[in-house]
Amino acid sequence: MPGDSRAAGTHHSRPSSSEEPPGLEDQELLLAAAYVSDAQYNRNVPFETSPQAIRLYHFYNHWTMRAATYFFIWVDLALALFEEPAVFPLPFLVTSIAEVLCLTAFFGRLVHFAKVTPQKVFWKDTKNICVMVTIVLTLIDLVIYASLEAVNIRGVRWSRALRPVFLINFPESRQIRRAFRSIRNTLPDILYVFLLFLFSMMIFSLMALKLFGDRDLRTVEGSPYFTNILDIAFELYVLVTTANSPDVMMPAYELNWWYSLYFIAYVIINTYIFMSVFLAVVYNNYRKHLKNEIHTLAYLKRHKMTEAFNILKVKVGTEFVVKEARWRRLVKVVAPGISSSHLELLLRISDEGQTGHVDKMNFLRLADLLNIRVVAINIKKHPLETWMPRVYQSSTSLLVQKMVQHRIFVWVYDVIILINAIFIALDEKDSLISYAEWLFLSLYIIEILLKLYTYEPSAYFGRKQFWNWFDTLIIIAALLATVANTTIQARKYNSQQVLDIVLILRILRLLRVIVSIQRFRVIVTTLINIGPTMLTFGGLVLVVYYAFAIIGMEAFHGKVHFLDPGSGSPDAAVCGNPALKDSAFARGRYCKNNFNNLASSLILLTELTVVNQWHVLADGFALVTHQAAKLYFIGFHVVVVILIVNIFIAFILEAFFVAYSLEKSEVETAIEKKIQELGVGVQEEDMKDGGLIDNVDTKDSGFSADEGGNKKQDLRGLYFRIASKKYKTVDTLLQQMFESEIAPEGKDPSLEEILNFSPKKLNFDNSA
Amino acid sequence: MPGDSRAAGTHHSRPSSSEEPPGLEDQELLLAAAYVSDAQYNRNVPFETSPQAIRLYHFYNHWTMRAATYFFIWVDLALALFEEPAVFPLPFLVTSIAEVLCLTAFFGRLVHFAKVTPQKVFWKDTKNICVMVTIVLTLIDLVIYASLEAVNIRGVRWSRALRPVFLINFPESRQIRRAFRSIRNTLPDILYVFLLFLFSMMIFSLMALKLFGDRDLRTVEGSPYFTNILDIAFELYVLVTTANSPDVMMPAYELNWWYSLYFIAYVIINTYIFMSVFLAVVYNNYRKHLKNEIHTLAYLKRHKMTEAFNILKVKVGTEFVVKEARWRRLVKVVAPGISSSHLELLLRISDEGQTGHVDKMNFLRLADLLNIRVVAINIKKHPLETWMPRVYQSSTSLLVQKMVQHRIFVWVYDVIILINAIFIALDEKDSLISYAEWLFLSLYIIEILLKLYTYEPSAYFGRKQFWNWFDTLIIIAALLATVANTTIQARKYNSQQVLDIVLILRILRLLRVIVSIQRFRVIVTTLINIGPTMLTFGGLVLVVYYAFAIIGMEAFHGKVHFLDPGSGSPDAAVCGNPALKDSAFARGRYCKNNFNNLASSLILLTELTVVNQWHVLADGFALVTHQAAKLYFIGFHVVVVILIVNIFIAFILEAFFVAYSLEKSEVETAIEKKIQELGVGVQEEDMKDGGLIDNVDTKDSGFSADEGGNKKQDLRGLYFRIASKKYKTVDTLLQQMFESEIAPEGKDPSLEEILNFSPKKLNFDNSA
Repeated sequence: MPGDSRAAGTHHSRPSSSEEPPGLEDQELLLAAAYVSDAQYNRNVPFETSPQAIRLYHFYNHWTMRAATYFFIWVDLALALFEEPAVFPLPFLVTSIAEVLCLTAFFGRLVHFAKVTPQKVFWKDTKNICVMVTIVLTLIDLVIYASLEAVNIRGVRWSRALRPVFLINFPESRQIRRAFRSIRNTLPDILYVFLLFLFSMMIFSLMALKLFGDRDLRTVEGSPYFTNILDIAFELYVLVTTANSPDVMMPAYELNWWYSLYFIAYVIINTYIFMSVFLAVVYNNYRKHLKNEIHTLAYLKRHKMTEAFNILKVKVGTEFVVKEARWRRLVKVVAPGISSSHLELLLRISDEGQTGHVDKMNFLRLADLLNIRVVAINIKKHPLETWMPRVYQSSTSLLVQKMVQHRIFVWVYDVIILINAIFIALDEKDSLISYAEWLFLSLYIIEILLKLYTYEPSAYFGRKQFWNWFDTLIIIAALLATVANTTIQARKYNSQQVLDIVLILRILRLLRVIVSIQRFRVIVTTLINIGPTMLTFGGLVLVVYYAFAIIGMEAFHGKVHFLDPGSGSPDAAVCGNPALKDSAFARGRYCKNNFNNLASSLILLTELTVVNQWHVLADGFALVTHQAAKLYFIGFHVVVVILIVNIFIAFILEAFFVAYSLEKSEVETAIEKKIQELGVGVQEEDMKDGGLIDNVDTKDSGFSADEGGNKKQDLRGLYFRIASKKYKTVDTLLQQMFESEIAPEGKDPSLEEILNFSPKKLNFDNSA
Repeated sequence: MPGDSRAAGTHHSRPSSSEEPPGLEDQELLLAAAYVSDAQYNRNVPFETSPQAIRLYHFYNHWTMRAATYFFIWVDLALALFEEPAVFPLPFLVTSIAEVLCLTAFFGRLVHFAKVTPQKVFWKDTKNICVMVTIVLTLIDLVIYASLEAVNIRGVRWSRALRPVFLINFPESRQIRRAFRSIRNTLPDILYVFLLFLFSMMIFSLMALKLFGDRDLRTVEGSPYFTNILDIAFELYVLVTTANSPDVMMPAYELNWWYSLYFIAYVIINTYIFMSVFLAVVYNNYRKHLKNEIHTLAYLKRHKMTEAFNILKVKVGTEFVVKEARWRRLVKVVAPGISSSHLELLLRISDEGQTGHVDKMNFLRLADLLNIRVVAINIKKHPLETWMPRVYQSSTSLLVQKMVQHRIFVWVYDVIILINAIFIALDEKDSLISYAEWLFLSLYIIEILLKLYTYEPSAYFGRKQFWNWFDTLIIIAALLATVANTTIQARKYNSQQVLDIVLILRILRLLRVIVSIQRFRVIVTTLINIGPTMLTFGGLVLVVYYAFAIIGMEAFHGKVHFLDPGSGSPDAAVCGNPALKDSAFARGRYCKNNFNNLASSLILLTELTVVNQWHVLADGFALVTHQAAKLYFIGFHVVVVILIVNIFIAFILEAFFVAYSLEKSEVETAIEKKIQELGVGVQEEDMKDGGLIDNVDTKDSGFSADEGGNKKQDLRGLYFRIASKKYKTVDTLLQQMFESEIAPEGKDPSLEEILNFSPKKLNFDNSA
């Protein structure tokens, strides 16, 4: 997170500029900077405005502090890998010390926060209470477990299921909390649909009992078919997930084909219609709720920027403004890493008329301006051109450059890649094919060398040239991998892990073909853009998975074992548990699907998320424990598949609509306009396909030198472009989603609207 | 379709009213009526304006003609039930004669259409060409098949797969064609995502081959695991549908748990992300396309109404208007079944100032006004009150009425129903429970009698009182069913079909509980409202299923047989085909899942739509024929699950959003306002929970008698309400969907916009 360091380090950087007007104290600047920084990152933490509290607040937001918090959260979560039942066992003493260490860190973070925020707000905030209660509970649990351990009684480490609380409840995990709020807000609406769905299931269960209960039908396994109302309800719930279709219908269908209509009606009503309605309700609520939150965020941002403005403002003529020098110092405090050319550009945008001060409207935009990532491009000559201009400009050299820039060059390499794919699919034991592998590799290396010859290297490997980096890294990795592969084969030494990675890298090389097809690139770029936000769902899923995994491990640990069939153990076929004899679980060789450690549990939960055969898994664990175990699996299905997967789909739908339309329409921001106005812009199109520099002529930037001599040169020889297609934070993407809807209100809010911020709204982020 | 008859019957109804101004010929009125009727039903058929053509056109749109066409279409489609391989076999002679009859009817319909529409338009219309080509092809096929039959060679009746062409290509099947157009327009966008998806599948297949190909792994069935690239590709395609999860992963997972990450990555990328992207692309295109079509429809409607206005207009003062008498005659021609009170209401709305003529703006609204279903309610006294007022108004009687109207009455019956449900779930062989059944039934009958005593019967069974009808019908059916059940049991004669229906009806009675819970009723009403439009998808699915079923029957007919296991045939376990020995198909006892007749084929295709175990079915049919048979199943999956099911979900999402918000917001139409203004309205809320009449006092309607004496009494004693929550046609629902977006443009279109109708746009509906 490159931007995270901007808000930090301010408490020890005090530039004593000569332009500093007297009377503005550093504390005020720091306070304003805290507001602007909060607005930029959409932080909504009410903090004390005393000088000491502000310094502590800046320190609280310092990236090292946040990184440390995350480090301890992950260590705490990862402890489950080392505790009984462990993937890598460690003694209880080690893990408990590590846990206490983590808890201390969390407590320290909380104390730090308490010093920053007003006491009243702190104690009203559910998040802080949650963290404190969890710390206490964990300590109690640890003590109890250790005492029991001392007298050789094995206790239950129940507090482990609470560990995700730390991941959710620190202010940094805004997005995960928002997703949880989304779910919570959806619940009342979904509840009624769910009840109706259960009612419909009940009606169908009763029908099934009456229709098939007395027929003495048998399933394929030979067990009685549809004789018990609870079994029927479970089977029909499984049918909603389609996991036992068409098996559940076959006995009735064999009896008479009319009975299949019962099942078809059931599937249409409960699977197709009800599941679509679930998605519709979740999606509808998700949008509505998100819109409200983003609206509130936008207002809060404006509020914070207004606060900052009020601190810094001075009266010039009839209106309040912020002087240029003050504005500069503020930006440098908020974004310490900003380049002076970038700063100059922002000033030009904020102070359009070059009046020497920034008015309120332009000042309020500052947080947004800072969020737009501007890439400064130094137009440089190719090093070879500087080094030996005659050779580089010779007709042969120019021909080569022209050739490389031609699209046929791209096509030729696409064909080569496809031929390569065919060779990979063929058996590589043939030595001819093995040699071909070297041929392909050298062709790829030649391609990269040619490109580096044609394009300026530092531009080719620019920060935003994702596909060039991808290309080169894959080729280098493949080169190393092939060398490693050959060495290994020559030595007859077979290291499985290395070989596997080699193979995967060789195949990933084929992904290069995507780069050269425009339509593919658009889709992939869209997917990559929404990637960071998808990680939010990764966090959400992790929280739920972790809690379910811990519960699952406590409940089902050791009930099912994977015994190597080669070991000849008689229990290998029934996963070491005779209760599984003749079960579909054992027949499907599902012994590896168990809760014997965290990794296995998470893989099993993934399988349950995919849904198929989940009833076999549920049945298996019900057989080795109790029928009530099925409730665990049904609960997981409801929470993960009906709620979370639907929210995920809702999110993808929404994000894809926005990202897709953003790709097509032009979103011209103020910066883009200004860059174009100043003539220092580089067209996005020129950046693609490597035609990076050639189309930009080195004409004077037209940037007039009417300012202090120490500033004007900053923009010379520099070109800017906006990396607008990439979103920095999840919030930015979300705001982009509803930008069009916020604009009319956000642009010109009346005084009442801003004053309307109730304390409740200000505590918005803390209330959850 | 109650409204369909309105456009009809006009060619023989010529009321010679004395108000008729001279000079307006009947032909002109008929022409205007044709335009209005087309606007009302969104028909976009260009017709000739010669008097004879208009008469023919009215006849063409007559409901008998349309019903006859549908009848022949269904007969033609149903023929597959009687042809080899038949559910109910009939000789070839009979089915071929029936088919020729149908073809004649289709040809006649086409000739009729050719006489109505301009020649040039007719021959440019793909629909007509399609129908003609299909007729010719079917005839050729029939002749060939018959000749081959004559020399005892069994031919292939390939033209049967073309039969759905008739269902699609007659102008009446607008909605199905629109759904097809939706799909066609989505194809280009989906194609690229699909190619990228295939590419990603290929990459993963290559990886799987390299990672697992040389490991000598075995599946649970003992066959080699991931050794052949084509098998791998198929397995991975199946994994996208999740049908073989987690089985496909188990051998690799058993080897090393790291390998499960490969499968998890695959599922996340290809199942979750790509499938969501498919839905996003389909949904996005569906919305975009639908919006365009509805916009065009709205413009075309306006255009037709303008044409009608131009025919009927006369100049009064400075503006053109339509005289009241003419307007009356027009409405009577367009909607012959309209009640005079309804006509009067419409006139009051159209001629607000009671000037005796309708201006252009109000005239253009006529089509929409006719589409709003107005329910006229006659406020009548309860017959018992008329018959014996003293008894009915006695304090006991009033107490009973008050009791019935109380909500506790509803709750008591809900509890009774739930107790009933428990009794049904219990074993009914117990005679006590058997008697309880009679008790419940009598309780229900008492309830209905009490309600009929309290509410006016003809109002209680009003046309729109869906839930009252539902209630009563279910009870009567259950009564009959229980009587039948008892009779059958008494006689020890067990007719399975009757018993089954009895059982289902008894359980359906429980649905009554939905009626009394408001939130449930909202959801169910929403579902019922979008029901008719869902039928469009039924048509779409039918077309695709039918074509696939015919192809499947030709390809796989007789390959798999269901032999009763009780018959002791040795082939029963392998479905009569030794090729299925040891296959998952035979093991799952899937023998009934075959293509041996139309019913079996359609059930099998439904199972394929549900997706689960489709690979087992595909493998089974590949074993008995050829591996290429899998292409049939993959093709079906792509067409039905990826395209049609996603469009279905997109539709449900869209429809649910609209219907849900319509339920919550008040859509006040001009009619509603007018009804309220005139004081003849009944609040929607009063209609619910049976409080039907009581809250409407019989005060004078306030409708002033300033018109001719023969009209004013029409509105006396009548109350109206709008059945606005029900949508008459699919188009109405769709237009409602985009109403808010159309409104700004549709309200006040500039002259150019109306003139802008290119001939292409006018042929809009014919171009597909």
